[in-house]
Formats: sequence, C-alpha cells, structure tokens
Amino acid sequence: MKQISVAVAGLGNVGRETVRLLRERRAELRERLGAELVLTAVADRDAAREARALGLPASVARFTDPAAMAARAGADLHVELLGGYDAPRRFALAVLGRGKSLVTANKRLLAYSWPELAGAAKKSGARLAFEGSVAGGIPVLRALELSFSGDRVLGLDGILNGTTNYVLTRCEEGLNADAALREAQELGFAEKDPALDVSGRDAAQKLSVLAGLITGGWLKPESFPVAGIESVTARDVSYARERLGQAVRLVASLRFTGSAAAPRVEAGVFPSLLPLSHPLAAVRRQYNALLVKTASAGDLMFYGQGAGAGPTASAVLADVFVTARDLLGGLPAPRPGPRRLELASPDEASSGFYLRLEVKDRPGALARIADALGRERVSIAAIHQDKSVGAAAVPVMITTHPAARGAFETARRRILALSAVSPRHCAMRILA
Amino acid sequence: MKQISVAVAGLGNVGRETVRLLRERRAELRERLGAELVLTAVADRDAAREARALGLPASVARFTDPAAMAARAGADLHVELLGGYDAPRRFALAVLGRGKSLVTANKRLLAYSWPELAGAAKKSGARLAFEGSVAGGIPVLRALELSFSGDRVLGLDGILNGTTNYVLTRCEEGLNADAALREAQELGFAEKDPALDVSGRDAAQKLSVLAGLITGGWLKPESFPVAGIESVTARDVSYARERLGQAVRLVASLRFTGSAAAPRVEAGVFPSLLPLSHPLAAVRRQYNALLVKTASAGDLMFYGQGAGAGPTASAVLADVFVTARDLLGGLPAPRPGPRRLELASPDEASSGFYLRLEVKDRPGALARIADALGRERVSIAAIHQDKSVGAAAVPVMITTHPAARGAFETARRRILALSAVSPRHCAMRILA
Repeated sequence: MKQISVAVAGLGNVGRETVRLLRERRAELRERLGAELVLTAVADRDAAREARALGLPASVARFTDPAAMAARAGADLHVELLGGYDAPRRFALAVLGRGKSLVTANKRLLAYSWPELAGAAKKSGARLAFEGSVAGGIPVLRALELSFSGDRVLGLDGILNGTTNYVLTRCEEGLNADAALREAQELGFAEKDPALDVSGRDAAQKLSVLAGLITGGWLKPESFPVAGIESVTARDVSYARERLGQAVRLVASLRFTGSAAAPRVEAGVFPSLLPLSHPLAAVRRQYNALLVKTASAGDLMFYGQGAGAGPTASAVLADVFVTARDLLGGLPAPRPGPRRLELASPDEASSGFYLRLEVKDRPGALARIADALGRERVSIAAIHQDKSVGAAAVPVMITTHPAARGAFETARRRILALSAVSPRHCAMRILA
Repeated sequence: MKQISVAVAGLGNVGRETVRLLRERRAELRERLGAELVLTAVADRDAAREARALGLPASVARFTDPAAMAARAGADLHVELLGGYDAPRRFALAVLGRGKSLVTANKRLLAYSWPELAGAAKKSGARLAFEGSVAGGIPVLRALELSFSGDRVLGLDGILNGTTNYVLTRCEEGLNADAALREAQELGFAEKDPALDVSGRDAAQKLSVLAGLITGGWLKPESFPVAGIESVTARDVSYARERLGQAVRLVASLRFTGSAAAPRVEAGVFPSLLPLSHPLAAVRRQYNALLVKTASAGDLMFYGQGAGAGPTASAVLADVFVTARDLLGGLPAPRPGPRRLELASPDEASSGFYLRLEVKDRPGALARIADALGRERVSIAAIHQDKSVGAAAVPVMITTHPAARGAFETARRRILALSAVSPRHCAMRILA
C-alpha cells in the first residue's frame, strides 16, 4: 500500500490534537484514502518531551528546530502549527521551496505572505492547504474550492471572529460590552490582549485569505476599510434590536465584480445592522458563520465553532487528507492561478448607515447635522433623540437610506466637526 | 491538454441548466481542473429540439434513448437527470457496469438501489457522485466525505424537505397548514401531489442517502420510523412557540453508535420541537439545513436552498468537477467500502415528547391519561387543558421528560384506546 509521510511542526494544543487524531483515525483514513498516512517527524522546542507525552514510537523523528525538519525529514507533507509569523514564514517557504506540500492554519502568515507562498507553491508544484485558518472546523474553504467550481461566487458576508460576536450577542442579553469581553476572556476564547479581535483586524486577515482562495489574487489586509466594535455600546445593540428590529454583528464582506480573469473586489469589515430574520442574526456567542452568495445555488450559510484545538485540528486533518489524495493522483490544486486583484474604491460601496451621536442640546444642532447629510445627498430614514436631562449631551440615533460610503464618510467628518457634537460616536453599516 | 468527456441524460430544467453552466463556466473549470470538460452527448426524448434550443454544436451527439447513449457515447462521465426510478436505474447500472462514472441527483434511485449501485461502482472502479440528491446546492455530501475525514461524525439533524418547512414556518406567521401548503404549491416548490413531502418520505429517502455516504452501508427508507406533518396544526405550532418557547420543524435524524468497521445507526424522521435558540429553529420557509455533530469540530450547520434547477445544477456541476479530478488522478472514491449497517431499535431512542389530544371533558379522563404514561414510566413535564365549552372535546397538550420511544408509543396507543380520547391527535419529538 502506498504511503504519504507527514511531519508536524509545532506541538501546542492544535499540534498535539492533530497528532492524536492522525493516529486515532488511522484505519478510517487508510480506507478512505487507499493509502497510509504515516507520521514520520515532529518539531517542537520540547519535541522529546511532547513526543513522549503523546506516546509516539521511536520511528518518529524529533526536531527542536522546524527549519531542520523541513531540510532533513523529507516528508511528503508538512503541517505548520508553530504560531507567530517569522518562524512559520521561513518554515513554509523552506517546505514549499523543496516541492513538499504544506498544511497551515496560520491566517496571519497567509494574509501577509500570500504572493510569496502561492508563488513558491506554483513554482515547485507543491500543494498549499489552509482550511483551519478561517472559521476553524467549518469547511468553508473546501466548499469554495470544490463545491462552487461550477457556480460563480458573487460575494460573502462572514462572522469570522468569535470574541466580537460573543461580546455583541451578550450585549443583546443585557450585559455591557466591557463585562461581556471580560467574560469571554474568563471563558478562555478571548485573548488577554483582545485588540486584534476587537479592532476587526483578525476578521480582516481571514477575509484576505478568503479573497485569495476565491480569486487567486492578493487582498492585503491594510488595503480595505476595517472597523471594529470599540465604539459599539450595549445601548446601540438594544436600540437596534428594539427600535429597528435589527441585530448588530461584526461582518466581514466581499463583493466580486469583474470577471474570473480580471477579478475586482469590494472588501470591508464593519459593525453591521442586520434584520433579525437574516441568517447571520441567528449566530450567537462564539460561533462563526459564512454566508456565501452564488449565482446558481443562491445564498448558502456555513455555521460552527470558529476556533479551538478540536475544530482547528479537524480542519487541519481534512487538509492533510485532501492534500494526500491530490498528491497520490498527481493533481494540481483546484484553484485559479495567481493573478492581480483589483480593489473597488470603498467610497463606492453602497449601504444604509447607522450613526449614534452625542449632541449638546443646542437649538439648531439637529438641523446642522441633517444639513451635513443632505449636502452629501445621504437621505435620512429616521432620527431618534433622547429626552435631554439638564445640559448634558443627549444621544441622537440616525439611520439613513442606502448611500455611497464615501458620501456618508464625508458627512460624518463634517458632523463630528460641529461644536455641538461630541467626538464620541458610533457608526455602523446597515445590511439588507 | 487532457479532456474528460461528459454526457448528460435528461434535459429537463436541471439538465438544461447543467448544460448551460458547463458551457458558460468552461474557461474557469479548465483552469481549476487542469483539463478540459467536453460535452460530447445528450439524451432526451426531444434531444434534437432541446439541443437546438441550447445552441449545442453538431459535435454533441443526440440520443433519444439514454440506454443507447450509455452503450455507445463512450463518455468518461455520465450525468443522470432523467427523473423517475426505472429508467434512471437501468441507465445508472449500464453506465457503472461499463466502468464509466455517474453523477446523479436522484435521491429515490440512491435510497432504493444503494447496494446495487455501490456494488456496480466498486466492481468496475467507476465513481458515483450525488451531491444534488440531498439539500440541493448545499454542499453537505462533499463536507461529509472530505472535510470530516479526520473527524468522527456522531450524528446529524436535518431539515431536508422545503415544502414541509415552508408549511410549518408559515404556520408560525399565522397561516393554517392547508393555506400554507396551497401557497407553497402556488409558488411552485410544492408538488401538486404533496404526499411524498408531507408524509416525511422525501426526507426519509434523503436520510438514507446521507447514511449510505457516511457509513458505506444501506439504510432502507422503510427500515426506520418516519412521521410526517399531517397531524400538526397551526395550533400546535403556536402553542409550542408561545407556551414552550419551541419551534416545530420536520427533522430527519441519524445517531451513530458502534465503530466505523461495524456501524450502528439510530434513524428517524419526526416532527420535532426545538428551542428557539437552536440553529435549526432559524431555518425558515423553503430553506434546508443540516446540523452535523462531530467529535472534534463540534456542531456545524449547512444552510441554503434545498431545491430548484439552479441549486441542483450547481451541485451536479460540482460533482462533475470533483469526479473529473478523481478520474484524472486515478483516485478511488474517498468513502468507506460497502458494509452492513446495523439499525438500532427505534424503541430505544430517547427524547421528550409532545402529545396533543382531544379529550371529552369527562371526570377522570386526565387521570387515566396520566396513568397510561405513568405505567410506562414516561414522566410528565406539563399538562395544559383548554377551558371546555359545552360538551365538545377540548385540546389537552402534554409534554414529557425524556423517555424511550418504545415506552411512549405504548402509552400513546393505550391513551388513544380510551373512550374519552378522540383518535385525532398529534405526537412530536422534543429535541434538546
């Protein structure tokens, strides 16, 4: 029986779980693959200790340096679960440069080294798989790669970050945002430093990976607008729910225009209002979901746990399996070749907007706000002003009809420059 | 460049859309496949007319008899979209018997001829793909086949029939079941004879296909309990929603016990109560969804349009693409080999139950009902009795704590034999 040798770099939570599953599922994998997946090497700072704890046989080579493993282990397929950016990048390029295939779950590596990695894989004919890098154990990348091959992906909207979704949906249940974030940290799925999550940058990196997979082009994480949930309060969430019948979610979006040969994409991550009947509105707590819009199959949603050692190891092992099959068959990756991806101007993107301001109760303040929007032809759908108590600033909530983002942003800047308006505010997109 | 020749049998809505997409997406499919997919033959009663209407070149052979196409076209891959059962079965066995691969969207064919088809494919080394047969354009089969290869599927709960889901969710919006069904028929997604849908048998056939794919064994549609929505009224739906905080859905379920080598399955289709926060409760109208429970990736849901020419053609074309790749690589199907599937006794399955009875307001009637349940050790969670008006029978709603189905069914039979209880009633499963 044919064999595919596998080497695993990084024996943290995900790496250990991957090795455990690879051995536990050996018989089933063999039957489905028609070949044997054999673990031949591991690399970890504590390789000897981890290998002993995992009960690995002596035949599995131990490396303390992943670069040494890439150079000497000679495995058909390397799994990169090192964490960080520089060491994974060096490892990945070393593996792909040798014509060996790579499975990784490292979204940052992919988002920032996409052209390098795709180029190295193309040049050497190696395979590069990364299902675990986006939405954990939810098999969204494989679906985009294989299941919509005869269809056309028009766009997608994703809840790609569990921490921010936890915070927003706990706010629906009455908590304030700070308390919800602390809770997520205590439960272990928000980082101690949650800045990457809360700012939307984590979701932006995942969006970059999705765009690369779909188009073959590179969507740099800094090349499109990204807003986080820092300014969203429990007050915004309850106002949206009770007055507008809308849920608040941090939604990462892609819209494809142009052709397959010359792809053009509109990309962004924004806190967004969605009708309560929208499938993404039903996604609560730390769950992730991806809504894919296709020309033929219509709207499809994929939903599940976006993070954690189990889900990520499950995705990594699926990548190992599928990559091993492609290696056995000598098949090229089922992807569009590397190409230039044209970015649409974010100013052109059209949607409704929600704007919460704090306005000192001065005569004419509302009129000046309305005028700033009107001058940009942003049409107001509704204004709600809380009753003022004394001289304090009162919250004013404004929703608009669909307008170009550029026009709304110009109006927003003008409004925030008004003396009656506090710089503290919250702006969100309204998704239909 | 290598070529894979494709022949399509049946040019109805799905067949025409498949041919159209195959030609429209030719360049993208070629790039992703590294080979050319070439349509070489079509079969249809009106093959000449349909081919002309589709603008097919003269190089595409026309057959009025699919059997003749299977015998003479020599295509690498045949697509079966004939409709019905006998002709598709003959065609499928002819194709597979010649070692040619088959793509079909025919759930009835698969559910009732599984061992024959799987056996013929195994014997000749042909591939058999059928993503379009379950949940339309939602890529659930590919996920089960490839993405959970390193994971273990513990079970699944699916909303696999759009008509019944439309009826149940329109009842939530205040319609009665008959009016909702008429509406679904007018909108064109319920059959004129809706018996197959309403009785749960359509969902049962799809469940059979899912079990076959996951285990390699045959789950005969008549071998497990199937209940439809005939006895579910708008009253049950609103009572569940308002009093119990539960949604009513027709849910097809599998639970796997045993090992991969000796699989054992508990299967059934039942109208079911679900908490409103359950992901399947958010599935409305004609949408389908499949919730998959895995050991490592946790619970995942796939959601989308379960039927229609576009979604089904999208799934068929994905099957063509993936099958063509496997042919190019000489890869075996990534599935467990044919094996015996052991069925768990449906009596053992445990869940809560909902029972709506019509009870003549006689002294002691409730006591006798409670006694019948108690004798089977089915513990009552709540009883609700409407106020009686005159001598007419009043509805009594009972919910139970989890109990074995066998015990509940025995109690139900005893209760329905009581003289104070009308045979008209509704029984549903309560899913946690």
